[in-house]
Amino acid sequence: MTGSQTACSIEKSRAFVKTFPIEPIDSGLLDGLAFAVKDLIDVSGQKTGCGNPDWSETHPEAVANAVCVDQLLASGARCVGKTITDELAFGLDGENFFWGTPLNPRAGDRVPGGSSSGSASAVACGIVDFALGTDTGGSVRVPASNCGIYGFRPTHGFVSVAGVNPLAPSFDTVGILAADPDILTKAASILLGTRGVEQIELGKVHVLREAFETSDPAVREALAEPVKLIRDLSSSRAAEISLKDIDIDCSRDGLRGWYETYCLVQWAEIWSCLGSWVDDVKPQFGPKVTVNFQLVKTLDRKTIPEAVRRRESYFRALKNFLGPNDLICIPTAPTPAPKKGSLGVDRTVDTYFQRTLSLTAIAGIGRLPQVTLPLALVDGVPIGISLLAAQGMDSFLLSAARMLAAKA
Amino acid sequence: MTGSQTACSIEKSRAFVKTFPIEPIDSGLLDGLAFAVKDLIDVSGQKTGCGNPDWSETHPEAVANAVCVDQLLASGARCVGKTITDELAFGLDGENFFWGTPLNPRAGDRVPGGSSSGSASAVACGIVDFALGTDTGGSVRVPASNCGIYGFRPTHGFVSVAGVNPLAPSFDTVGILAADPDILTKAASILLGTRGVEQIELGKVHVLREAFETSDPAVREALAEPVKLIRDLSSSRAAEISLKDIDIDCSRDGLRGWYETYCLVQWAEIWSCLGSWVDDVKPQFGPKVTVNFQLVKTLDRKTIPEAVRRRESYFRALKNFLGPNDLICIPTAPTPAPKKGSLGVDRTVDTYFQRTLSLTAIAGIGRLPQVTLPLALVDGVPIGISLLAAQGMDSFLLSAARMLAAKA
Repeated sequence: MTGSQTACSIEKSRAFVKTFPIEPIDSGLLDGLAFAVKDLIDVSGQKTGCGNPDWSETHPEAVANAVCVDQLLASGARCVGKTITDELAFGLDGENFFWGTPLNPRAGDRVPGGSSSGSASAVACGIVDFALGTDTGGSVRVPASNCGIYGFRPTHGFVSVAGVNPLAPSFDTVGILAADPDILTKAASILLGTRGVEQIELGKVHVLREAFETSDPAVREALAEPVKLIRDLSSSRAAEISLKDIDIDCSRDGLRGWYETYCLVQWAEIWSCLGSWVDDVKPQFGPKVTVNFQLVKTLDRKTIPEAVRRRESYFRALKNFLGPNDLICIPTAPTPAPKKGSLGVDRTVDTYFQRTLSLTAIAGIGRLPQVTLPLALVDGVPIGISLLAAQGMDSFLLSAARMLAAKA
Repeated sequence: MTGSQTACSIEKSRAFVKTFPIEPIDSGLLDGLAFAVKDLIDVSGQKTGCGNPDWSETHPEAVANAVCVDQLLASGARCVGKTITDELAFGLDGENFFWGTPLNPRAGDRVPGGSSSGSASAVACGIVDFALGTDTGGSVRVPASNCGIYGFRPTHGFVSVAGVNPLAPSFDTVGILAADPDILTKAASILLGTRGVEQIELGKVHVLREAFETSDPAVREALAEPVKLIRDLSSSRAAEISLKDIDIDCSRDGLRGWYETYCLVQWAEIWSCLGSWVDDVKPQFGPKVTVNFQLVKTLDRKTIPEAVRRRESYFRALKNFLGPNDLICIPTAPTPAPKKGSLGVDRTVDTYFQRTLSLTAIAGIGRLPQVTLPLALVDGVPIGISLLAAQGMDSFLLSAARMLAAKA
């Protein structure tokens, strides 16, 4: 089984803010491929709306492409338009108060996931070969899981974010969504600047127990077969591990400690990046984003040094644990896409956000690359299985993901 | 010899955009220390001017501190004001057309260096214990070298840039300037979130031949003694190396290849980050910055994919070469601070920029941390010697720098 596309028109997908053709500026590895760009990323001649009408109104048209967009155009790909994002990329659901909810073609009554909602939808609907998203706390990985496609979050800092609106720079990345792992790999190699496919000699595969325990029983069951395939990849060198095998300190509070550490640093950064604009413009937000910005605004900033220390110590523990050719295996999300309209307004109360972020925070805190693969269904609804690799081992990770996809 | 401070009033230093007291919000490792903030970094209640009057006029007051500022205030330090920066941080000289040239108290007829010109001046003039700067292509390291103080550029991505105006995000870092290596280390440990001092077991020390050959003969001569001290640190395990020992491919064009690769990626990113504002506002710039923005605006963006590939392959070569406890030793700059008014307007023609960037690009391309130490003089004018360590080995590097400073 591989990521499938459901043929669907642009109108039906409701994935786009705007469509327009931009031809490639040179020929290369991506000749003939079409891509879409999340409306958090600059495309020359277009306003970057960031999912909020007041943002559009208070910012000029972009006069340059983001570097990542130029990398693709200069490698033969053509751009077809800009896709809906959660407001300011601050969401995991994909229900934009102003722009609506892009179609999840694999489950029409469920959310596509966010914040790269339109990019996931455009790929899953077969409109483009791949799409650019951004991923701070899961914004590529979660919609890819929800929509049954592949999603790649690179090592932090390894893909240019120039021309991409910041949310929380210590975690912000530009990622890719695609239905075909070969296309995912090609587009990633252009953004990463790597040459050709990495020869792969797999080290250990660590299946993280707490990540599976956090997930729905039905998700664990659905992922049993992909996990078996992953274990088979490395024969006897796959093993279930627990957080305490990584490090005692970082296991004390379970994945909740990872979630909390991630949130504190992220919230501090979001208010530093966007607070001045919010305070100056007093924009209209949807209900969930209103609550989100209250949270980040009222954070006690005395807590920042300890949060950064904790992030550093978790990062260091993972770095010391994970061999250069090792992989970590976790569910991408603890549950398939929630029903539309079912998610609570307050993310500190709604357990969906806590459970999901406790999984996505691992790559964020560890600065690790992650690929989610669409290898399972729960009652016909997609759920992703994820592989993470060591910092900078992006090409290796993508090779492992392709190998796995070929066996699935 | 260690970094010296020359007592000098705030007025005489001409280092500040504005002074104001901000008391610490909590007690900690930095109790009793005073710091200044480069005016590219947000301080709540102040406009962030970025060295350009039109930037000030078109942006609101900051309502939040940058995360790095809160880290310091929550660790006991107090802030005394904001310091002059080269316009948009796009310069290495420290001669701001609008704000003037902060005093280099070690050489009054010479530039302080930029773009963290005021931060270096404020420290060298003894007004603060340390200062925050930013370093994309040398903006902490060069002014530290010019003004005879310590300067630290962290591993890329390891110190939060939230609330710091971007220039070229793939290279942007927040760094520290200080006259005392212990204070430098303390402040760095807060920003990095590391605990205590790293025990140091030194690996190899690689003295990079091309970096010394690029430098003035008088600089090589002045640095001979510090280099000997560095060699002695690791006894027999210090050796002169050449770029070809790192990798044949990355040595083909000498350091010029590193300079060119760095510039192409940096210029592409600068226009993606700042082009829309420049085009919309049409700000008045000083003569050098006017030329700089012409350069980045007219870059052929078809060259971006190859530039990113080259950066990745240079990065990879350095990563494979450099052991976790190894150090690289280079001059911080090829020459002491130039005379005021002596630098050409076009940075592609003026050899100062090319020679300096060919040294500073190494840490930029390699994502490596670097410390410059004020251990030498050329005719009474300071010149820095630099140590670089592997990615993420910031605490180790700072320990090595302190050890060296203690022996000097």
